[in-house]
Amino acid sequence: MKIEIAIPIFDRFTALDAVGPYEVLSRLPGATVHFVAAEPGPKRTETRMLALTADLALDELTDPEVVVVPGGYGTRELARDEQILGWLRRAHETSLRTTSVCTGSLLLAAAGLLDGLEATTHWLAFDTLAEYGAVPVERRVVEHTEARIITAAGVSSGIDMALTLAAHIAGDEIAQAIQLGIEYDPQPPFDSGSTAKAPPGIVELVRGAAGTFA
Amino acid sequence: MKIEIAIPIFDRFTALDAVGPYEVLSRLPGATVHFVAAEPGPKRTETRMLALTADLALDELTDPEVVVVPGGYGTRELARDEQILGWLRRAHETSLRTTSVCTGSLLLAAAGLLDGLEATTHWLAFDTLAEYGAVPVERRVVEHTEARIITAAGVSSGIDMALTLAAHIAGDEIAQAIQLGIEYDPQPPFDSGSTAKAPPGIVELVRGAAGTFA
Repeated sequence: MKIEIAIPIFDRFTALDAVGPYEVLSRLPGATVHFVAAEPGPKRTETRMLALTADLALDELTDPEVVVVPGGYGTRELARDEQILGWLRRAHETSLRTTSVCTGSLLLAAAGLLDGLEATTHWLAFDTLAEYGAVPVERRVVEHTEARIITAAGVSSGIDMALTLAAHIAGDEIAQAIQLGIEYDPQPPFDSGSTAKAPPGIVELVRGAAGTFA
Repeated sequence: MKIEIAIPIFDRFTALDAVGPYEVLSRLPGATVHFVAAEPGPKRTETRMLALTADLALDELTDPEVVVVPGGYGTRELARDEQILGWLRRAHETSLRTTSVCTGSLLLAAAGLLDGLEATTHWLAFDTLAEYGAVPVERRVVEHTEARIITAAGVSSGIDMALTLAAHIAGDEIAQAIQLGIEYDPQPPFDSGSTAKAPPGIVELVRGAAGTFA
């Protein structure tokens, strides 16, 4: 089976949102991951410290089997950009799964793909997601089989989402093999990865300095 | 405090090895992450599906506070490259921490920085690491405070390593804030991320198709 996977990137995206799923999905037998953009070329992250290359223009890949939309501060501007929104609508007509990580879900919502659907995003962007017509829920990965949509929470959650997606596409054994290949046996030194688990002072610290930490 | 962080990249590196730590360390107050290479410009991962840009030449940043060496198939060739090995030795003379993810430890070992030291790498590269004079151990993150070296296991382990490093540099609260900022609350759909946890058949599957999965 040939599986084309499109990851649209853009100015001020978050690198791990895109690279976590890339690292999982590029290992799917038969899959090719394409980084795409309105204009091909290097796209810089919101920190300005890193650029990833988009190899294809959006109109060179209009019917991928899988779409993974990363987040980042650039999504706010892109949510008003009819070129990317139109591309997302068209790609979703034929995709097996249309997915997002972090504030990438704002773009799916702005394209009208999440109207009235439960979805997730970075915990700091729940209100914005609701304004676009989705129903924010506090889960790490939110799947809709019939609507063929998966949204994931902030940044690192794309790895969990992509393993779930890999299992849908190629079965549990292949997904487990990929997990072992990337040695995804998480052992964070703290248990501070969600607002429910982090000490309240840490939540306030991040909320007050979102430009630094989130 | 000003903290310069160098991540050397090269042809056929593994993107998540570099981008996991980047995503954590770029959020450290006062830190700047620089992607460096012998020749600046785009460097392609071993899948050929993605390129990251190295913005600086190695000789433009010889005394970073932190070095993070990613792995990938390209490390085998680079382990004979005196330019990168000399750069690593010189950088390590003044760094606060010299670190690696996955087979990046082969380069630290080839540079002579791991002689007789316990260290880790991707589980498929333990024998190679031993040939370079290190003592492989099955831990996700291996720290040497006096030698100022941290090595991490395969691919995704760089996120755990970088959070540990962030706590050393800026304290536990900042590290926890970064963890919450990137919502690192891992919930993998399987428990197959190490050879000890994966079903034996999955370990054999990955071992037999390392070019696909690892």
